[in-house]
Amino acid sequence: MTQRINHQWRLAARPVGNIKESDFQWTEEPVPELKDGQVLVRNLYLSLDPANRGWVREEGSYMAPIPLGSVMLGGTVGVVEESRNPNFQAGGNVQGLLGWQEYAVTDGAGLNKLPNNPAIPLTAYLGLFGHIGLTAYFGLLDIANPKPGETLVVSAAAGAVGSIVGQIGKIKGCRVVGIAGSDEKCKWIVDELGFDAAINYKTENIREGLKRTCPKGIDIYFENVGGETLDAVLAMINLHARISVCGMISQYNATAPVPGPYNLINVIPKRAKIQGFLVTDYMPRASEAIPELIKWYMEGKLKYRVDVVEGLKEAPRALNKLFDGSNQGKLIIKV
Amino acid sequence: MTQRINHQWRLAARPVGNIKESDFQWTEEPVPELKDGQVLVRNLYLSLDPANRGWVREEGSYMAPIPLGSVMLGGTVGVVEESRNPNFQAGGNVQGLLGWQEYAVTDGAGLNKLPNNPAIPLTAYLGLFGHIGLTAYFGLLDIANPKPGETLVVSAAAGAVGSIVGQIGKIKGCRVVGIAGSDEKCKWIVDELGFDAAINYKTENIREGLKRTCPKGIDIYFENVGGETLDAVLAMINLHARISVCGMISQYNATAPVPGPYNLINVIPKRAKIQGFLVTDYMPRASEAIPELIKWYMEGKLKYRVDVVEGLKEAPRALNKLFDGSNQGKLIIKV
Repeated sequence: MTQRINHQWRLAARPVGNIKESDFQWTEEPVPELKDGQVLVRNLYLSLDPANRGWVREEGSYMAPIPLGSVMLGGTVGVVEESRNPNFQAGGNVQGLLGWQEYAVTDGAGLNKLPNNPAIPLTAYLGLFGHIGLTAYFGLLDIANPKPGETLVVSAAAGAVGSIVGQIGKIKGCRVVGIAGSDEKCKWIVDELGFDAAINYKTENIREGLKRTCPKGIDIYFENVGGETLDAVLAMINLHARISVCGMISQYNATAPVPGPYNLINVIPKRAKIQGFLVTDYMPRASEAIPELIKWYMEGKLKYRVDVVEGLKEAPRALNKLFDGSNQGKLIIKV
Repeated sequence: MTQRINHQWRLAARPVGNIKESDFQWTEEPVPELKDGQVLVRNLYLSLDPANRGWVREEGSYMAPIPLGSVMLGGTVGVVEESRNPNFQAGGNVQGLLGWQEYAVTDGAGLNKLPNNPAIPLTAYLGLFGHIGLTAYFGLLDIANPKPGETLVVSAAAGAVGSIVGQIGKIKGCRVVGIAGSDEKCKWIVDELGFDAAINYKTENIREGLKRTCPKGIDIYFENVGGETLDAVLAMINLHARISVCGMISQYNATAPVPGPYNLINVIPKRAKIQGFLVTDYMPRASEAIPELIKWYMEGKLKYRVDVVEGLKEAPRALNKLFDGSNQGKLIIKV
């Protein structure tokens, strides 16, 4: 068998502001021979997520920063090419955190075997039935406990997480308002996903938009963006409002500190809760969520879309689509 | 019997920034004859609280704003002078929200009879065994659930609420750090109340002070002040930190919006909770707290001090002591 060559993106510099291609280095190296207990995986799809930006910050985020020179980290779905580990068979599909590379050799720790279900495309395991679906499910249901008739506002509502949050909100009987960055996205979340209303924050003042779409105030806010949007929401929260903080993408590329919301004080009279969370904490409870997500998907109550970019080499450029909002659905690289 | 004259402070203007005496009008009127079901109370002590500032804002706070021309609202302890209500006897002590005046005629709604316990001074019902004690008790225990060994930081730590919060934290086995505005206050909370450490924010940078006194980070923050202090705390919170938001006194007199904390985003990696509350929600559970507070007080584990200002006429000027920090303990007017 000819020697396989592994192409990789390695972190070359700590990005300042937007990620640049020069922050990464395109390298190649031969795939080593497997040792006992090891598995060789060929990555088929790579997940690009806003959290990736935090992973390369010098200060780290919820984990230690990726060291300079290391292969960039990322969620992957792949196929086992060879196995000297009894838990994995060649030809099976697996999910892991195998990074921005074509091949990975691993001892199998953290690697999950995927079911062979032709009704579910492989990319779904990087989205609806992966960390994205779990983020939406637990971030909304566990942190905010939505009740029928409540008003739920979702920012980055056409994004991977936000679009699922809004649909779960509808399943739970909420009035759901989405904030997104284009008329196309707003139309999609209302017409296709069943949101009750949408605000295009690029053409409408957010405060005006919230007044227009939330006549009964806001009971739940699913926070993906931070900044001015959070402030506008805080001005309109109802008694016992819950704010589930999933992300603050408006700040990830910031090169100077970003002031917090002016209306934070409103949590006192409204007895409101602001709660941050990470999906990693919920991984042990994934089996609560995945069957329900699959059921809703099969019933047609959960739709999602993927934005597949061809070629591992595009990864650094493609990542910026998350920050300029030009992605349409879950951003995935076809390796 | 000669006609009694009632002196009152009425709200004359919506204060801008610090409260001025000219925002109130000193009026007098005869005390009316009682009708059936009514009680005449002579106020002995009047509670002055930071929340009073919110009550006079045009926008209101957690309740409708006090109308211009009305007697200023405030918590009171007094004695029943006359009663045509079978629930109240002349000579008994009562607690209520009877306002900035010498006398009040009431139908008894919201009026509580006080026990005749010579070991408990009347002023305690406006503090340790009143809304102040309940605020500290539930704001710390219900919102933040302190565990032994955790680090609790309290701002306005020599204030009425903060001083009790810190002592309850010690009873629960926490390391307790207080932030206060004078060396005298810092000495008092450490030497007399048993706090582990104190930061005088007027002479030490808060960030430096927190690093010095919280080597294991911050698990719980009891928020009374807002602004820069909250920001410094957010930079040092531990995993699953809880921030109980009781007040943000640094903002009450603000004439322009105050930016929120720069480090709010830290709630995501730390999975932290920020929760606002009002003591009014806990009034139905007062009977859980008061016996325990009395027990701790009798055991010498809870100390408190009152700052009694003589004369109702001083009320507007005295209220500002809460905002410049010159009060020492619970601020009370001896009517």
